Formats: sequence, structure tokens, C-alpha cells
Amino acid sequence: MSAPDRELLPWPAEEFVARLRAEGVQRYHDQHPFHARMHAGALSRRELQTWTLNRYYYQTRIPIKDALIVSKSEDPAFRRAWIRRVHDHDGDGPDSGGLALWLRLAEAVGLDRQEVASCRRVLPGVRFACDAYVTLCRESPLVVAVASSLTEMFAPDLMSKRIAAWEQHYPWVGAEALAYFRSRVPRARRDGEEGLAFVVASATSRPLQELCVAALVKKTEILWHLVDCVQMACAAETAAAKAAE
Amino acid sequence: MSAPDRELLPWPAEEFVARLRAEGVQRYHDQHPFHARMHAGALSRRELQTWTLNRYYYQTRIPIKDALIVSKSEDPAFRRAWIRRVHDHDGDGPDSGGLALWLRLAEAVGLDRQEVASCRRVLPGVRFACDAYVTLCRESPLVVAVASSLTEMFAPDLMSKRIAAWEQHYPWVGAEALAYFRSRVPRARRDGEEGLAFVVASATSRPLQELCVAALVKKTEILWHLVDCVQMACAAETAAAKAAE
Repeated sequence: MSAPDRELLPWPAEEFVARLRAEGVQRYHDQHPFHARMHAGALSRRELQTWTLNRYYYQTRIPIKDALIVSKSEDPAFRRAWIRRVHDHDGDGPDSGGLALWLRLAEAVGLDRQEVASCRRVLPGVRFACDAYVTLCRESPLVVAVASSLTEMFAPDLMSKRIAAWEQHYPWVGAEALAYFRSRVPRARRDGEEGLAFVVASATSRPLQELCVAALVKKTEILWHLVDCVQMACAAETAAAKAAE
Repeated sequence: MSAPDRELLPWPAEEFVARLRAEGVQRYHDQHPFHARMHAGALSRRELQTWTLNRYYYQTRIPIKDALIVSKSEDPAFRRAWIRRVHDHDGDGPDSGGLALWLRLAEAVGLDRQEVASCRRVLPGVRFACDAYVTLCRESPLVVAVASSLTEMFAPDLMSKRIAAWEQHYPWVGAEALAYFRSRVPRARRDGEEGLAFVVASATSRPLQELCVAALVKKTEILWHLVDCVQMACAAETAAAKAAE
């Protein structure tokens, strides 16, 4: 077998998983300086609000991109499993589900629920990044769209750290308002494992595997950029306030 | 107000509904000659098989186009209501839901379940028509995609007639195998009413209303063409058998 042929062989499962994990670990937004400040208790109430309001737009894209993923599968068993993610965020009624829990968090940090729900004040860059996530899922083959969800593998640790940090540093938010983060710890673990198993089983060629890694990298860029935009907006606001003093 | 301006006013709700109903009544595939023969007991076992096998491909497109419709809505309440349609067809497990019931019907008419499920023998024209339905839902605004589902308004009568006709004329199929048709009577009524209410409330301009009527017309063409293709294939097979005698 010549060298170019060897290059086209699919990676063995362990190597493929190791590559996905390495990209995720290296690029996940848990290392973003803004999150470091959040977890060190250094954010102002205003900064927490800006993050909460903008991140809500990301939350609203999740059931939409997951319904797109459902629509891409020819397998009722896959659809039955994946549709649970839409329910996780939309809930069984107006007061249940991830979106409702996030709006409760928004109220607890002092935001107006209706204004957050309207997404009127979402930063343009946040909108671009989150819309890019929906576009990626809409335009990619099923397995690649699923691969973009694999940041879930790194979410449980971040959520656990976040719960502890908020309880310690921002007690005024109230422990009950952290219900969304709490709900995500077991669900993100389950979702990450299921997604990884599907991607490993379904990406059976090197080009597909490479597209999966690229989708995960792009997803980490989307998450990172969201926090970048929030950080920039907070910095601009702080500078403006100082200039006005 | 000048005449051109008047033309651009949206139709009042009653007129809009009347136009949708008129197109549906006039074009619905209950009047297709093949269905007339089916309900008169004139189809052979082989013809029932050809219809059942090909119509299964249409059934498989339903949860896919409904997941696309879910993905188009920004409203969790709408998504919660519409996602029920995906569950209706995919079920809670491999033996429940509309697709599983259809495969039971396929076995009852003497087809191999796996072959039907594989969709290998689906006629090209049936595939084109059913794929056009998914494309219509993928590329249309939400309300227009919903309007394409309004053939449901005419389904309960057709299903009731079909159950009676099959029990009378094709008793060898077995009454239990007609469970899919039975399940659709109340569900199609509910789905048709909900869809109509949404379309009337959401198509608030004349151009949107016209797109909704056009989508319903196209959907009737899709359903009609499916039966046309089945009829042509059956006729060709009958002619070939006669020539070989």
C-alpha cells in the first residue's frame, strides 16, 4: 500500500476519539478569560446580566438545530433518541424545560424576562455565531451535525464548576435559579456519550472523520466567540462609564 | 382606495378558509380512479401490495418534514404542539407509531417487512413526489410549510371510507392490520384543525395567503402523483402478464 493510500484509511476508533477530545479540551470555552473571571467571582452584576441575556440567544438555537438533526435521520430509533433533546429545552409546558429555566435565571440576575425572551438586545456578533451553528447543522451531513454537538462532552465539568462558583461568589442570584446548570450535568453527560458513540460508528471514512473534527472545532469557535462578544461589550460599557465619571 | 390597493388586502378569514377548502375538496386524491377502484373492491392483492409498498415511502417522509417544520418555529409552544406529529409516526419504540403500524399493514397484505422498510423498490416518480414534499417544507416559510399539511382536513373521511371498504372487500388483510387508518381518523381531524387555525392566524398578508393556497395545491399534486405512479406501474405489470399468456 502506498503512502497516499494509507493516508486515506479511516482512523481507528480510539485515535478518532482522541483527536476529537484533544480539539475539544484545547479549545473549549471553559478556558475563556471571561469565564475565568466569572468563576473567580470577579464579574459585576451588570456583566453577569450581559452574559445571561446574550447566552439566551444561544439557548434558543438549540431546539431548532436539534429538530434539524432529527429531520436528517432516516432511522426512527435515532430520531426517537435525539428528539428528547428538543423536549429537554422546550419542556412540556411554558414553565418547564431548559428555555424556561434560563429565563428564570435571567430574572434572578435582575433582567426583565420579556426583554430577554424577545432577544432584542442580543449583540450582533453573538447572533452571527449562534446562527452559524444552525447553518452548520442545516447544511452538514447528519454525522457531521451530530459531531458539532460533542462539546457536550466537556460541559458537565464546566457546569459543576459554575454551580459551585455562583453559589460562592454570587449568592444574591439564589441557588434555585441555578436549576438550568444543575439539569445539564447529567443530561450533557448522557448526550455527549450518545453523540460520541453515534459519530464513531457513523463516520466510517477518513474524509467524514475529518469533517467531524472540523465541525467540533467550529462549534468551539462559536462558543468562544459568543463569550468574546460579551466580554467586548462589557469592556466597552466599563470604559464608557469611566469616561463619564 | 384604488383597485390595485384593494387587491392587495388580505382575504377575510372566512374567504381564505373557503379558498383552501375549495382547492382541497376539488383536488384531494380521494377522487383518484385508483382509489375509487380500491374502495370498490376492484384491486388485486398485487395492486394493494404495490400501493402499500410505495405509500410507505410517503409515510417515511412525514416525521422528516415535521421535524423541519419544528425547526422553523421560534415559538416553544408551537414546537411542543407540532413535535407530537413526529412522535405519532416514530412512536415510543420500534413497535409503536405510524411507521410501525404501516409495516404491519405491509405484512398483512403479503409483503416482506424488511423489503418495504428498505424502500428499495419504491417507484422513481413516487420518490420524486415525496421528496418534493420535504423540499417544499424545507424551503418555505413556516406558515406555508404548515399550509401544505392541510390535506389532513380531508383525511378523516377518506380513512373512514377506506376502513369500511377494506373490511368489506379485502377481509383477508385482517381488521387488525388497519390500525394505522383507524389511528389517523381522530389525529388527522385534530391536526387539520390545529394547522388551519395556525395558517389563518399567521398568513396575514395576501401574498402569504396565496403562497399557502399554492402549497396546499402542490401537496394535492404530490399525493395525486403518487397514486398515478402506482396506477401506471400496476397497469404495466398487468399488460406484461397478459402479453406473456
